[in-house]
Amino acid sequence: MAHIKLNNENLPGIVGLLDYSPATALPLTDLANALLKEDSTLTKAEREIIAASVSWWNGCHFCHTSHAAVAMAHAVADISIIDDIKNGLPETEVSPKLRALLDIAHHVQQSGKKVTPEDIRAARETGATDKEIHDTVLIAAAFCMYNRYVDGLGTDQPDDEALYRERGRRVARDGYVAVSEEYLASAATN
Amino acid sequence: MAHIKLNNENLPGIVGLLDYSPATALPLTDLANALLKEDSTLTKAEREIIAASVSWWNGCHFCHTSHAAVAMAHAVADISIIDDIKNGLPETEVSPKLRALLDIAHHVQQSGKKVTPEDIRAARETGATDKEIHDTVLIAAAFCMYNRYVDGLGTDQPDDEALYRERGRRVARDGYVAVSEEYLASAATN
Repeated sequence: MAHIKLNNENLPGIVGLLDYSPATALPLTDLANALLKEDSTLTKAEREIIAASVSWWNGCHFCHTSHAAVAMAHAVADISIIDDIKNGLPETEVSPKLRALLDIAHHVQQSGKKVTPEDIRAARETGATDKEIHDTVLIAAAFCMYNRYVDGLGTDQPDDEALYRERGRRVARDGYVAVSEEYLASAATN
Repeated sequence: MAHIKLNNENLPGIVGLLDYSPATALPLTDLANALLKEDSTLTKAEREIIAASVSWWNGCHFCHTSHAAVAMAHAVADISIIDDIKNGLPETEVSPKLRALLDIAHHVQQSGKKVTPEDIRAARETGATDKEIHDTVLIAAAFCMYNRYVDGLGTDQPDDEALYRERGRRVARDGYVAVSEEYLASAATN
């Protein structure tokens, strides 16, 4: 049970919080959409892998599993990516550029000050652009927020991977804003 | 100099980043406005003190000084609040409720999982509502994002407190969205 009394205790993780606080729900889902769903030279699967990795490093089960499931839906990858992210992606094909961006994301997860000119140089040497470095830092920073929001309020975080896979498919198809609106509308009529 | 080539190197801290990435600037400023400027049973000064304290714990000079300056403008407080936040506010009049909420924010800054039922109970005993606890957790979480964004990209962070005071007065009066738009419009014409 969450640390505070939510309006609907059947809504897991961040979904129950978006329902609880409509005034902040819109900028939070708009930001996720801008970072993860809009066009970019980083693929959607690459960006979701960054989000899921940061969430795993922060120990946030709900966000890690949710975003691994969206990455899976985008890349038509196997469910094993959920565990592979925990191990640093030894089994998944990851480009040198994504490896370098994940190193930057890992430093951001610890502290913004941990990012060094050497991290940036290493990413540039793999072909990463300034915009891709910017987006990686902001995705990693944003998940340091989402993870703390979800865990800091003690939300319910189901174990059943099927729930995450179903939501992941819908998010991959329709984006964050649309899927959140569907969940919240459905909660309002139940 | 920032880690990436910004469009305008004269814009410090997050301002240069909002200018660089318009697609994410709007949700980021909307979120700050919803958390810090809209009506709430927590005063604007209380919320800015939470934001500035989290920024100080994260070692982000730009965000700590900026939000301490907005708190000062809201509470018509002294410039000494900038240093008092660094020391845990021994000189500032702080209610038991705000002290308990700052304890929650300090745990969120370390990890969402650090927030305990005892933290929540202690805050409730001082009269904090569920909504106030929610908002405190999200403010603390959001500044774990803003701080990492500003520091992770190595932005320029001026020392001159007068700059922060001037911007703090404008933010206290007009809010985050309006002031960011003014800065960015002015940068576009320079």
